[in-house]
Amino acid sequence: MAEDIRELREQLIARQQKIREAKIPILILVEGWAAAGKGGLIKELISEMDPRFYNVLSPAVVPETEMRYPFLYPYATAIPENGKVMFLDSGWMESCVRKILSHEITRPEYRRRVRQVNEFERQLRDGGYIVLKLFLDIDRKEQMERLLALQENPDTEWRVTEEDRWQQREYKRFREAYDEFMEETGEAAPWHRLDGSKRKDAVREALRLLLEKMDGVLSAGRYNGDPFEEEFPLLRMPRLKDVDLSPSIEDEEYRKELKKLQSRLSELHNVIYRKKIPVVVCYEGWDAAGKGGNIRRIAYPLDPRGFDVMPIASPEPHELARQYLWRFWTRLPRTGHITIFDRTWYGRVMVERLEGFCTEKDWKRAYNEINEFERQLTDWGAVVLKFWIHIDPDTQLARFTDRQNTPEKQWKITDEDWRNREKWPQYEVAVDEMLQKTSTENAPWVIIESNDKKYARIKALKVLIKALEKACEEKSRKDMEG
Amino acid sequence: MAEDIRELREQLIARQQKIREAKIPILILVEGWAAAGKGGLIKELISEMDPRFYNVLSPAVVPETEMRYPFLYPYATAIPENGKVMFLDSGWMESCVRKILSHEITRPEYRRRVRQVNEFERQLRDGGYIVLKLFLDIDRKEQMERLLALQENPDTEWRVTEEDRWQQREYKRFREAYDEFMEETGEAAPWHRLDGSKRKDAVREALRLLLEKMDGVLSAGRYNGDPFEEEFPLLRMPRLKDVDLSPSIEDEEYRKELKKLQSRLSELHNVIYRKKIPVVVCYEGWDAAGKGGNIRRIAYPLDPRGFDVMPIASPEPHELARQYLWRFWTRLPRTGHITIFDRTWYGRVMVERLEGFCTEKDWKRAYNEINEFERQLTDWGAVVLKFWIHIDPDTQLARFTDRQNTPEKQWKITDEDWRNREKWPQYEVAVDEMLQKTSTENAPWVIIESNDKKYARIKALKVLIKALEKACEEKSRKDMEG
Repeated sequence: MAEDIRELREQLIARQQKIREAKIPILILVEGWAAAGKGGLIKELISEMDPRFYNVLSPAVVPETEMRYPFLYPYATAIPENGKVMFLDSGWMESCVRKILSHEITRPEYRRRVRQVNEFERQLRDGGYIVLKLFLDIDRKEQMERLLALQENPDTEWRVTEEDRWQQREYKRFREAYDEFMEETGEAAPWHRLDGSKRKDAVREALRLLLEKMDGVLSAGRYNGDPFEEEFPLLRMPRLKDVDLSPSIEDEEYRKELKKLQSRLSELHNVIYRKKIPVVVCYEGWDAAGKGGNIRRIAYPLDPRGFDVMPIASPEPHELARQYLWRFWTRLPRTGHITIFDRTWYGRVMVERLEGFCTEKDWKRAYNEINEFERQLTDWGAVVLKFWIHIDPDTQLARFTDRQNTPEKQWKITDEDWRNREKWPQYEVAVDEMLQKTSTENAPWVIIESNDKKYARIKALKVLIKALEKACEEKSRKDMEG
Repeated sequence: MAEDIRELREQLIARQQKIREAKIPILILVEGWAAAGKGGLIKELISEMDPRFYNVLSPAVVPETEMRYPFLYPYATAIPENGKVMFLDSGWMESCVRKILSHEITRPEYRRRVRQVNEFERQLRDGGYIVLKLFLDIDRKEQMERLLALQENPDTEWRVTEEDRWQQREYKRFREAYDEFMEETGEAAPWHRLDGSKRKDAVREALRLLLEKMDGVLSAGRYNGDPFEEEFPLLRMPRLKDVDLSPSIEDEEYRKELKKLQSRLSELHNVIYRKKIPVVVCYEGWDAAGKGGNIRRIAYPLDPRGFDVMPIASPEPHELARQYLWRFWTRLPRTGHITIFDRTWYGRVMVERLEGFCTEKDWKRAYNEINEFERQLTDWGAVVLKFWIHIDPDTQLARFTDRQNTPEKQWKITDEDWRNREKWPQYEVAVDEMLQKTSTENAPWVIIESNDKKYARIKALKVLIKALEKACEEKSRKDMEG
């Protein structure tokens, strides 16, 4: 038996370089009972691995009242980069189960989280990740004996926590909750139960499973999930060509309105902060449409301690090495804060689509993945607003020419802008498709007519204010209800 | 007066693109009394700036008992990238002053922090950062009136914290502490006091100062600090050529020792964890010296939840865009954890020196900067150990040839390895200088003779165990004393 494990381990070592070369990221979730030997199992799995090849993380189960990020945040920000292994010593399962049993979250919230877990795992799998999920099982008696043994030794006594004792007392409820969770989250990445009372068998089985997964990918190639459609409540959006770009505003009215709206936004920022509502504002639009100036008018009245502007450029190498939403997960606002994205995850279905930076399956899948991502944000309580800053080609030409001819503005115009301009028709097709497929009720697109930049600023402010007022009211109602 | 501010602001806008192009990073620290208007001042400064150009951060003053990182960690990890402005709404001054006045830190610890602040600011300045430090001053009466006004308005009442009231009560002590801190930390970046009771004057003065700093750098070019020498208690190190590489160990003894030492290290890891001692182990050495295998023997007995191996490759773009120690600050262990660096910040005085990736001033200054950085770690309570894994050129050639001829090992050998090998003599000069100048008592270099890899592993384990034992004893003594 011991030889057997050694042999499997040697096979694993032989695979590790191949996995690295094939740039396959591997996420191994190790869940299970307290004292079932999760840490020990991980140790056996990594024992001969190159330490540069893996990381181990034990995400804390943060109390709901202190969670300033969405439920999946600790896991979504911890996914491995290509060619590396990340071990999670407990993760989303433990968090969900503990919080529903302690009544920290409601049943409907639990249901949402189960759905989010399934979305998360599927997105990773479809993005080419190996996701291996292990559950280390021991019975109540075995757990009791192990906890007692730990407690009796002064060197290990501290390892037994109040929560472990709670689990031992409520073993039956936990068993039911674990079973239920596993039953409901096996779709994209199946669960594997290992018998924690037979350590060697468990190690052998885990090694075997990991090798099997690795060999599967090494022979079939990195997985690239098929696009699919889930039902989202979509808003009807006009085609870009049908948008009336004539609206404008007089200078004097603009100044008056701007002042009034900014003052209102400033007040609301205060309320948002106190009610701990997170806000995500997305800006996309044509080059020279006036995104920068529009953002500045929104940012101006905000308390600088409570918002961030995130300019999104092409992904850097460490970002390219992970699932494409990772670099947005890591930039989310905390509760009560506002993040304004200057360009967003929609790059996937625009520039990445048109320039071939991802596969056709990738961008076709992205509409759904993005809708899921945004629903996870609004489920968390966030306001998500998406502005398409719109102009027509003539206006763009005029602005490009002006930039070209004005020395202080020349830095704003590059050869790439001119190249992109040539692809206007292709972009228009992509943007239209994006607007049709991702304007959900919870995270709507708003087209901001920006041939007149002043009109555009006033409209963006009004839309944002309305959305924030609505969110504040809803939050007040919810807080009152309980 | 209002025009004046507008004019200054316009000048600032005009500068911002130049600063971006010149890739100058700017750190603006805004300190001052509660209710002095720090947030408002920042708001005025950014009001017309491109929001993609700046960020604002309000680092929390974390209670000492919860601080799991060195004192400067929140600031050192938050420095801006090239061409960007970072505003800190309170920072290291507020933290130092509050903690000494609340007796959370001792007087000697306060003294150390003041020294660290001076080191930190100088390193940023020498690395080409603009560091602008503002102190917003109001007198006791003014503060009282402002706090009362905030408290009386139900919308702003929540803004007045218990700590603000404490400051108001203890105004005199705070005043003395602020004054003392400013007096002692003006060397590399002078303090500028602004009168918080005259808001417009304060804004005007802040704008003027910022413009002055910007223009200074834009006309003189990015600053590149001169090397200098501070006294560090250095250990005498042999020249590499004088190191006897003959030590070796018999197979049987190796196995016996390895088992014994690994079991001891495993025990110690537990103690380290409970005593919350952070550990930093650095590996440097010749290509094919056996770093990887050596690290694996150290990692094997450790609890995977309590350590990380950080492989350090060439810096990525977002890392190159910041002071060179930033990418190591962000990878530090928490208290009770071990981080093993596979290559380190010493790249600065080896590969970056030899390949011209930094200026001569940069690498010459680095010896001192690195000694300071490591002293900051050991001041914090960390064990810092640095291994030079040493072999002779013949052994390297034999291992290179073996790698070349063994299919499973071929990935380990690249053209770059051969090119580096040609530069052995230059590297030897650099390494000798590094060992002489950076082997401090608190963070010593240990040469690990690795012609016999097994001998090397045993030695590294022994040295590490001894260092950890010593640290545990010292920590016990300290904990008993206070």
